Amino acid sequence: MRLPSSIVLLSAVTSAAANGLAAQSTVASTDNHIVVETLRAAEALRDRTLSSDRAFDVLAALTTEIGPRLAGWPAEQRARDWIVARLRALPLDSIWTQEFVVPRWERGIDEGAIVSPHAQQLVVAAFGFSIPTPEDGVTAEVVRFPSLGAVTRATAEQARGRIIFVDRRMVRAQDGQGFALMSRDRGEAIATASRLGARALLIRSAGTSSNRVAHVGNIGYAAGVAAIPVAAVANPDADMLTAQLATGKSVRVRLVLRGRNVADGKSGNVIAELRGSERPEEVVLLGAHVDSWDLGTGALDDGAGVAIVLDAARRLTEMGARPRRTVRLVFWGAEEIGLRGARAYAATELTPARRHVLALEPDQGAGRAYRLRGQLARESAEALRRAADLLAPLGIDYLPEPSIAGPDLIPLREKGVATLDVALDMTTFFDHMHSANDTLDKVSRADFRVSATAYAVVTYLMASWPGSIGAVGTR
Amino acid sequence: MRLPSSIVLLSAVTSAAANGLAAQSTVASTDNHIVVETLRAAEALRDRTLSSDRAFDVLAALTTEIGPRLAGWPAEQRARDWIVARLRALPLDSIWTQEFVVPRWERGIDEGAIVSPHAQQLVVAAFGFSIPTPEDGVTAEVVRFPSLGAVTRATAEQARGRIIFVDRRMVRAQDGQGFALMSRDRGEAIATASRLGARALLIRSAGTSSNRVAHVGNIGYAAGVAAIPVAAVANPDADMLTAQLATGKSVRVRLVLRGRNVADGKSGNVIAELRGSERPEEVVLLGAHVDSWDLGTGALDDGAGVAIVLDAARRLTEMGARPRRTVRLVFWGAEEIGLRGARAYAATELTPARRHVLALEPDQGAGRAYRLRGQLARESAEALRRAADLLAPLGIDYLPEPSIAGPDLIPLREKGVATLDVALDMTTFFDHMHSANDTLDKVSRADFRVSATAYAVVTYLMASWPGSIGAVGTR
Repeated sequence: MRLPSSIVLLSAVTSAAANGLAAQSTVASTDNHIVVETLRAAEALRDRTLSSDRAFDVLAALTTEIGPRLAGWPAEQRARDWIVARLRALPLDSIWTQEFVVPRWERGIDEGAIVSPHAQQLVVAAFGFSIPTPEDGVTAEVVRFPSLGAVTRATAEQARGRIIFVDRRMVRAQDGQGFALMSRDRGEAIATASRLGARALLIRSAGTSSNRVAHVGNIGYAAGVAAIPVAAVANPDADMLTAQLATGKSVRVRLVLRGRNVADGKSGNVIAELRGSERPEEVVLLGAHVDSWDLGTGALDDGAGVAIVLDAARRLTEMGARPRRTVRLVFWGAEEIGLRGARAYAATELTPARRHVLALEPDQGAGRAYRLRGQLARESAEALRRAADLLAPLGIDYLPEPSIAGPDLIPLREKGVATLDVALDMTTFFDHMHSANDTLDKVSRADFRVSATAYAVVTYLMASWPGSIGAVGTR
Repeated sequence: MRLPSSIVLLSAVTSAAANGLAAQSTVASTDNHIVVETLRAAEALRDRTLSSDRAFDVLAALTTEIGPRLAGWPAEQRARDWIVARLRALPLDSIWTQEFVVPRWERGIDEGAIVSPHAQQLVVAAFGFSIPTPEDGVTAEVVRFPSLGAVTRATAEQARGRIIFVDRRMVRAQDGQGFALMSRDRGEAIATASRLGARALLIRSAGTSSNRVAHVGNIGYAAGVAAIPVAAVANPDADMLTAQLATGKSVRVRLVLRGRNVADGKSGNVIAELRGSERPEEVVLLGAHVDSWDLGTGALDDGAGVAIVLDAARRLTEMGARPRRTVRLVFWGAEEIGLRGARAYAATELTPARRHVLALEPDQGAGRAYRLRGQLARESAEALRRAADLLAPLGIDYLPEPSIAGPDLIPLREKGVATLDVALDMTTFFDHMHSANDTLDKVSRADFRVSATAYAVVTYLMASWPGSIGAVGTR
């Protein structure tokens, strides 16, 4: 839902005022000259970003002009080209792409139905990389398990010849941790189901939607085990299955999945650099992933991240002076199918000439930022405290919790790179994520301004901070 | 979302208590003996119904065991049989069906896509009785109109060879009146579009959902005008069309609709009677419609009504004494395709031996009752005041507004039958109505208890009232 911009602006300002800090400068008079200047610049950046819908407009253009961007397909390539064109319009020092080959999968028309006792349609969608069913589908009795974990403990008697229905419901939570629990044991459950002779796996959507949309994701098959078809079923349709099973009668389901693997394709990362004025060999990275699942337009996952990074890139080039450290804007490919771009990046880009001191990636939808998370080395505590002061008027707390956002940061963390994140409110994100409902109308301009502002400010401040920025445990 | 019943009960009781009336009897000591007894019985009925999920359980069973019930098809027949079986279990005086022939339409697989400037999928659904497109679809430039009314003023230059896109957004309102405005001028717009040589009509869904579901409805073609295909497009997809049109480029859409008319079929009404103890020739009617659109399970439209009427039937037969007037429980067929059952009923059932003094039909979803509406003759004012007193503790006001609910009551109103309704909150009803999302999980048990209670109580009180019940203007 879009609001007139005057209303949005008022709401953002009111929110800052409600924190009692709107008119109070973040800069204390006792600071030394360089710190004072850096904070003044960050504060000005904050206030400019907060009063603009530029990041939203980038997101609107991406979803309108490109739409879904499944990894390895031409739409993902078009998105890379689109990002490169936007970056070329900025005075950055270098822009390049890093290409790599990825496995490809193509969705077919998915069909599901309860055949008996009471015939009803089911909204289903194949998981990415699921094998198809035979052409005439799989029709079999359903056996219900309360979780993927329970499937790993199934017996052959329960599973053989049946469609296994996993009926765990995702719990709604602001920090989105309900989602992580939904995929736990998925690989092992698929392997167990296959080994025990089940015909297919039908999993209640890992999503909090009460709409008839299925939420998909990525699966793989363990080596040495026969692949079986795996699909997600929409929440209301899982309710229907549960209700029919509750009658005590045998429930038979027909499932036709037509998705299939095709020849490998090309994916890639887009990388841009704004060279640091004082410490060009130190990199502060802000990134997002380009690809999306195929059913929606990837507005929330991760068009929002792409828009935040592109807008931050533009704003950093608009500052009077460039940051002390090199800022890298990274747009990873093929995240959804297994962090392929992130692994390619981590394998080649961590060089002594580009020592990555800090990395950030939102990838949490487009909700309102509410918490700065992460820890840095002791000598960087002051930078973190200043970032927290800058964000407090936006309604953002700082907690020294581990930074957990940013799946593309995992390969960097494994190599010791420090990460921070600003947590975005994910209360409603999983109503839409990985489903056809991941579209622009789910984004609130007012909330998105706050989130785009938070990432731009933290990136700028960390890249410009005169003291050292380091990971916990490093010196 | 289902809540544990202990919580639901608490919430219902709290709501009544909040009205400050929970412990206060509706019966005043100055009433004459018969009135006192009638009100005591109505009050006991109210409190029993409010503390039970029986109506919800009926709705759960109907949607689970029957599901969608498109008029004229076997599923509608199964629903009639299911209703008859439930009625037969009650000590009613008579149960019969009234059959009639209806035109039939069958949905095919609907497809829509923006072809250029930026290729994207569109979620569309054919309106009921739309002709199909040619087999390879219609591909044409889109021209946008802000409303159906604007289409009726279109020029041939605007329309010829194009797909007309109607971009009016439904306004959310508690009384649901935004919906009525959405279909105004629809017939005339279709006729105009056809006359001017448009290829098809694509209408933003008459629904408040921000999900990728299309909301359908019933259309007809004016005599002497060539039929053109008519489809609804989901709100987020209409947003996408609008966004691409806003770029100023020509937008081309491909539409493939495969729904088609088939041979006429059989529909019918189910009618049951509980004969009045004192005035059997006077009828108080409580009804709902059996059929639904094909995409959801018709939980809200109008499974909720069917459940309210079935539960009221059971409760009325469980009272110590039967009502003074005859109560008719009517389950109309083929409402969605043009009030076919209601017209058949009105044509034959208004006899001197069964003078219909009052009729009620919810058909407003399953939201919480909030207002008693309608007017009766002056000498029936006391009955209405007593009904209002009985409902006030549930958070229901009385306003002497015209009773507007119950499309199946239109043919009865035309013949002078008085109607009342208890307005149900429709704030979220149109998020789901006529779409695949019309399913059981949208029903709150706590809200539905209040609504089922309100209809049972008003029906019982009016049927049992010792004074006369009459329409305004009658004596």
